[in-house]
Amino acid sequence: MKAQQKFDVVGIGNAIVDVVARADDDTLRRSGLTKGSMELIGSSAAKSRYAQMGPAVESSGGSAANTIAGLASLGDRCAFIGKIADDQLGAVFRHDIRSLGVSFDTPAACNSAPTARCLILVTPDAQRTMQTYLGACVELGPDDVDANVIGAARVTYLEGYLWDPPRAKKAFLKAIEIAHAAGHLVSLSLSDAFCVDRHRSDFLELVRNHVDLLFANEQEITSLYEVDSFDAALQAVRKDCRLAALTRSAKGSVVVAGDEIHVVDAEPVARVVDTTGAGDAYAAGFLHGYLHGLGLARAARVGGIAAAEAIGHVGARPETLLKALVEAKLA
Amino acid sequence: MKAQQKFDVVGIGNAIVDVVARADDDTLRRSGLTKGSMELIGSSAAKSRYAQMGPAVESSGGSAANTIAGLASLGDRCAFIGKIADDQLGAVFRHDIRSLGVSFDTPAACNSAPTARCLILVTPDAQRTMQTYLGACVELGPDDVDANVIGAARVTYLEGYLWDPPRAKKAFLKAIEIAHAAGHLVSLSLSDAFCVDRHRSDFLELVRNHVDLLFANEQEITSLYEVDSFDAALQAVRKDCRLAALTRSAKGSVVVAGDEIHVVDAEPVARVVDTTGAGDAYAAGFLHGYLHGLGLARAARVGGIAAAEAIGHVGARPETLLKALVEAKLA
Repeated sequence: MKAQQKFDVVGIGNAIVDVVARADDDTLRRSGLTKGSMELIGSSAAKSRYAQMGPAVESSGGSAANTIAGLASLGDRCAFIGKIADDQLGAVFRHDIRSLGVSFDTPAACNSAPTARCLILVTPDAQRTMQTYLGACVELGPDDVDANVIGAARVTYLEGYLWDPPRAKKAFLKAIEIAHAAGHLVSLSLSDAFCVDRHRSDFLELVRNHVDLLFANEQEITSLYEVDSFDAALQAVRKDCRLAALTRSAKGSVVVAGDEIHVVDAEPVARVVDTTGAGDAYAAGFLHGYLHGLGLARAARVGGIAAAEAIGHVGARPETLLKALVEAKLA
Repeated sequence: MKAQQKFDVVGIGNAIVDVVARADDDTLRRSGLTKGSMELIGSSAAKSRYAQMGPAVESSGGSAANTIAGLASLGDRCAFIGKIADDQLGAVFRHDIRSLGVSFDTPAACNSAPTARCLILVTPDAQRTMQTYLGACVELGPDDVDANVIGAARVTYLEGYLWDPPRAKKAFLKAIEIAHAAGHLVSLSLSDAFCVDRHRSDFLELVRNHVDLLFANEQEITSLYEVDSFDAALQAVRKDCRLAALTRSAKGSVVVAGDEIHVVDAEPVARVVDTTGAGDAYAAGFLHGYLHGLGLARAARVGGIAAAEAIGHVGARPETLLKALVEAKLA
């Protein structure tokens, strides 16, 4: 990193290549998979499940990395921290994020497990069901958190999935400390309802004491507070967190910051093709709007526009230049 | 291969993973690329051109392999012969073709160059411009041509691109010999007008003396005969080849077998997204119709239906089950 470089957002997350195939509901049932969820799998399951999948398409993914790709597509200056292996899929991941102008200098793991991959089954209803093999991601540790990069970014964006590989947690906490010492914001995405279930008490502590801007969908936020209704979760998070953006699929999103609250409709989608990355894209759009002073309601609208783009095609990363799309929609 | 296994079609071709990114016309011009063509590049150019590309999506490709994938999607029993390396992209190629039920047992090259890749730039007019790094494909040789597989297939389908890696030519000629000795058909796709230019005299000799069923598009067939008009090429090929299926993009296709000639319209396409693989898909549809005794005109229609499917999405391989699509269209 050049000493004087400034970033709008630095993301820290699992560096993953998505392997996307279509599947029907029967296949999910037979494999005992819960539709819409993310399940962690080991190396041998990664091999056997892949062998059972239909023909697939590979593209860079990873939740926080997708959000950073969205922000870059919106014109923001970004950096990413995450662990790939020194292999072909790692080269694909590095290429794709750098080609968007994102600074990505985390050294590849040597003699490690291969680059992480996420086997994604897209059902005819456009839902995605994910099985993640973390591979080289387990090598991410505090040494990979470059204090210069974190200190130079207005927002440090973290994904909850980072709580899964054991050493990444330390990287996560180190990044929070540096960001706050520099007077910058910390943002967290809860990632997945099952992930929240695995790490609920840690996540509650984070949300209450360390997170400035929280992203969660309805399943995740109700799981966090173990409540039955969206409204109950809304009232709880309102007390705990300075600013939360809560997504509700077709019902749009609700943004809450103390007494300020906005209920914003979803952007219409001509054809729902694949919901992979919709939440990641929403976070990109919202952060972009927020950092550019558009106000919370308009930031939520930008989030919805980015999410609608992601839903309209197979794959998690934007297929069009989001900056131009958002400018046209807001004009 | 099980001793008693029979195949409808065995394809022999370069085993390639496609790396697809969007690009504008200016980028093509600046890089000195000829829109719609396929250019061979070496290992260092493969690295530098990839570094210049935008974010990409990886999926299995290769001309004959795409045709075999199309035939498998149409329900035909197929095999493929081609050379991958023992690396991650090779595993992707092997997975994708096997997951369609295609028999693919060519041993991976050891200590070789990596698995071949084709950098594909898709312009807003849906044209694709390709740069191919042949990598491990140069290792394909006569030893890889399994006489049991060729002998068990009603059609041996070869791509003209095989004439580029030097040893593959011998594999190509060996396959022709075995197929004809077994009384089976040999089919050739001319692949690309520049490829025809590189190997014109060899291709003419093949077409005149060894090929039973020729596939070519308008540019390729006019290049083969060095004539200015489609009709001149049509009259020439009619004398040289028992059966030729000639594609003309939006103008449809012309099938000629001596005195029998059919001029068949293209299938309507709602939105032309990416023409990559359209010719490969046409060949799959035509071969399927021909082998199932539908007659030449109807076989050309099936070719058109498969091509229209390929054109409607990014990527060369079918995204839907072609068998169901064709049954619905022909019903």
